[in-house]
Amino acid sequence: TKPMFKRLSLIGIGLIGSSISHAVRRAGIAGDIVGCAVAPETRRRAEELGLVRKAYADPPEAVKGADLVILCTPVGAYKKIAEAIGPHLEQGAIVSDVGSVKAAPVQDIAPHMPEGVHFIAGHPIAGTEQSGPDAGFAELFDGRWCILTPGADADPAAVAKLEDFWRKLGSNVEIMSPEHHDMVLAITSHVPHLIAYNIVNTAEHLERVTDSEVIKFSAGGFRDFTRIAASDPVMWRDVFLNNKDAVLEMLGRFSEDLITLQRAIRFGDGATLERLFTEARAIRRGIIQAGQDTAQPDFGRSPARAKDGSK
Amino acid sequence: TKPMFKRLSLIGIGLIGSSISHAVRRAGIAGDIVGCAVAPETRRRAEELGLVRKAYADPPEAVKGADLVILCTPVGAYKKIAEAIGPHLEQGAIVSDVGSVKAAPVQDIAPHMPEGVHFIAGHPIAGTEQSGPDAGFAELFDGRWCILTPGADADPAAVAKLEDFWRKLGSNVEIMSPEHHDMVLAITSHVPHLIAYNIVNTAEHLERVTDSEVIKFSAGGFRDFTRIAASDPVMWRDVFLNNKDAVLEMLGRFSEDLITLQRAIRFGDGATLERLFTEARAIRRGIIQAGQDTAQPDFGRSPARAKDGSK
Ligand SMILES: NC(=O)c1ccc[n+]([C@@H]2O[C@H](COP(=O)([O-])OP(=O)(O)OC[C@H]3O[C@@H](n4cnc5c(N)ncnc54)[C@H](OP(=O)(O)O)[C@@H]3O)[C@@H](O)[C@H]2O)c1
Ligand SMILES: NC(=O)c1ccc[n+]([C@@H]2O[C@H](COP(=O)([O-])OP(=O)(O)OC[C@H]3O[C@@H](n4cnc5c(N)ncnc54)[C@H](OP(=O)(O)O)[C@@H]3O)[C@@H](O)[C@H]2O)c1
Repeated sequence: TKPMFKRLSLIGIGLIGSSISHAVRRAGIAGDIVGCAVAPETRRRAEELGLVRKAYADPPEAVKGADLVILCTPVGAYKKIAEAIGPHLEQGAIVSDVGSVKAAPVQDIAPHMPEGVHFIAGHPIAGTEQSGPDAGFAELFDGRWCILTPGADADPAAVAKLEDFWRKLGSNVEIMSPEHHDMVLAITSHVPHLIAYNIVNTAEHLERVTDSEVIKFSAGGFRDFTRIAASDPVMWRDVFLNNKDAVLEMLGRFSEDLITLQRAIRFGDGATLERLFTEARAIRRGIIQAGQDTAQPDFGRSPARAKDGSK
Repeated sequence: TKPMFKRLSLIGIGLIGSSISHAVRRAGIAGDIVGCAVAPETRRRAEELGLVRKAYADPPEAVKGADLVILCTPVGAYKKIAEAIGPHLEQGAIVSDVGSVKAAPVQDIAPHMPEGVHFIAGHPIAGTEQSGPDAGFAELFDGRWCILTPGADADPAAVAKLEDFWRKLGSNVEIMSPEHHDMVLAITSHVPHLIAYNIVNTAEHLERVTDSEVIKFSAGGFRDFTRIAASDPVMWRDVFLNNKDAVLEMLGRFSEDLITLQRAIRFGDGATLERLFTEARAIRRGIIQAGQDTAQPDFGRSPARAKDGSK
C-alpha cells in the first residue's frame, strides 16, 4: 500500500524532529524521510540513528520532492528558512511546523509560501527538557494533544490530512486560532517555564545560602523546577520574544495573585492560605482524570529513558 | 542483639510517619513501634498495615515507655502535643520531629520538655505530594539529607545517636541552626511550593482560557507544577505561618528577579533572556551530579508506586 506521504522533510532534527521521525516510522506513513540541520555533528548523528535517509546542510535541498515539510527549529529561525525554501517547494506540498508560539511565527512563514502549497501551522503539546537528535522517542506524542492553527483560507482536505497524520503519530488534534493558542500556552507552558528559570536564578544569587546547599537540599521541591529550567535556552528565548503580549498579560495576573498570597503570609491569614491551596488540588485531579499525567511519578515524559535507565 | 531503641513512638502517621516506620523496620533498629493519630480511620489503617503495633488517639498514651518520640504532624499542632506529652515522657528519651520549619516550631516544643529528656529537632529533606498512612515507603530517605538543629546545650551523645538513627534510615545528616535551616528551605522548598500553588490558581481564574483547556494542554510544563501543588494544604499553611520572615525575604528577591525577566521580554532583549536561561542550567547539572535527581524522569519520588504502577 502507498504510504501517506512519499517524502517527509524535517527542517531541524532535535528533540521534536527526531521524535516525529521515530513516530512516523513506527506508523509506517512516509516513503522516505530526509532532513536538515546546522551542525555537521547533528547531521552525522541523524543519519547514523536512521532518523533521516539524508541530512542536508541547506534547507532548499532538503525540501526537494517532499510532499510534507515540517519546521522543527526554534521559531526565531523561521523567517530565513521560509524565505529560502519557498521557491523550492513542490506543488501541492503541505508545510507545517511544531513551534511553541503561533501568531508571530505564522506571519514569518506565510508570506513566503507559493501558490499551490498548503501552509498549516501546528504545535504538539509534548516535550521533555532534553534536546538534540538523541533525545527523541516514538511515544512522545502518544495521548498528547496537537494543536493546528490553519488560516481561514486553508484547504480543508490538506487540514484533514495533517490531522490524520498527527492522529497516526498517537496524538489527539484540536483546531484553534493562533492568537487563542498563544494565550492558552502562555499560561500552561510559557509562564511556568519562565518562573522555573527565575527561581533557579534567584537561588543562585543568594549570599547566605550557598549553591551547594541549594543542590543538596533540592529534594524539597526545588529540583522539580530545575528540571524544567534545564530546557534549551535558545528555544525559550525565541518563545518569549515571539509571545510577548500574552506572556506579559499572564505574568501580570500571576504577580497579582502572588501578592495576595504574600499578604496572607505577612498577616498570618491561615484561612486564606488553606483555601487557596485546597483549590489548586482540583486542577491536579482534572489533569490525572484527563490522562495528561498520573499519580505515578512523572508519567509519560521520557519512557525510552525510563526503560533502559541510561543517560 | 539489642535494637537501637526499645520503643519508637510516632506522633502522626502520615506520609513521613509511615515512611519512618517502613525504614525503621527495614533497618531493624526498634524493638517496638507505636503511634498516634487523630482520625480513627488513620489509626485503623496504621495498625492494619503493620506501621505500628498500636495506634493511640491520645498523645500521652503513645509516648509511655518510648525512648524515641518523633513528631510527624503538621507543625501547627506541635504546641498542644508538646504540652500534653511533656509530663509523660520517659527519663533519657530523645524527642525529635520532622517538621519543614524549625525556628518557630522549636520554640513551641522546647519549653515543655522536662529535665532529662533530649529534644533535638530534625527535618528529612524528602517527600512526595501524597499524604496519609498509605503513602509511605522505606526508600523515601535513601540518599537524601536529614537536617538536625540541636540547641547549644544539647547532649552530644543524644545528637550522635539521632544522627546514627537517620543514617540507618538511609540518609545523610547535616547539622545547622534552626534559623539557617529556615532560610535554606525557604528557597529550596517553601517558595517553590508557593509559586506552584499560585500559578495553578492564576490558571483557574482566567476568563478566556477554560479549565478544560488548561488540563488538556498541561503537558507543556504546567502539569509539573500541579504535582507540587497537590501537596497537603494544612501542612503547607503551617509552613508559611511558621516561616514568615524567610519566605517573605525570598519572595521579595524572586519578584525582583522576575521583573528583570519581564522587562527583557517587554523590550525584546533576547541576549539577557538567553544568558539568564543558560545560567539556570548549571544548577541543574549540580543537582544531578550530587545524586539528588537524575536525568531520568522524576527519580526517587515514589519508587513503591512506580514499581507496581498502582494508584
Ligand atoms: N522541547 C520541547 O519540549 C518542545 C515541545 C513542543 C514544541 N517545541 C518546539 O519545537 C521546535 C524545536 O524544538 P526542539 O526541542 O526539538 O529543539 P532542539 O532539540 O534544540 O532541535 C532544534 C533543531 O533545529 C535545528 N536548527 C536550528 N536552527 C536551524 C536553522 N536555521 N536551519 C536548520 N535547522 C536549524 C538544530 O540544528 P543543530 O542541531 O544543527 O543546531 C536542531 O536540529 C521549537 O520551535 C520549539 O518551540 C519544543
Ligand atoms: N510531605 C512532605 O513532603 C514532607 C517532607 C518533609 C517533612 N514534612 C513534614 O512532616 C510532617 C508531616 O507531614 P506528612 O506529609 O507526613 O503529613 P500527613 O501525611 O498529612 O500526616 C500527618 C499526620 O499527623 C497526624 N496529626 C495531625 N494533627 C495531629 C494531632 N494534633 N495529634 C496527633 N496527630 C496529628 C495526622 O493524623 P490524621 O490522619 O488522623 O489526621 C496524620 O497521621 C509535617 O510537619 C511536614 O512539614 C513533610
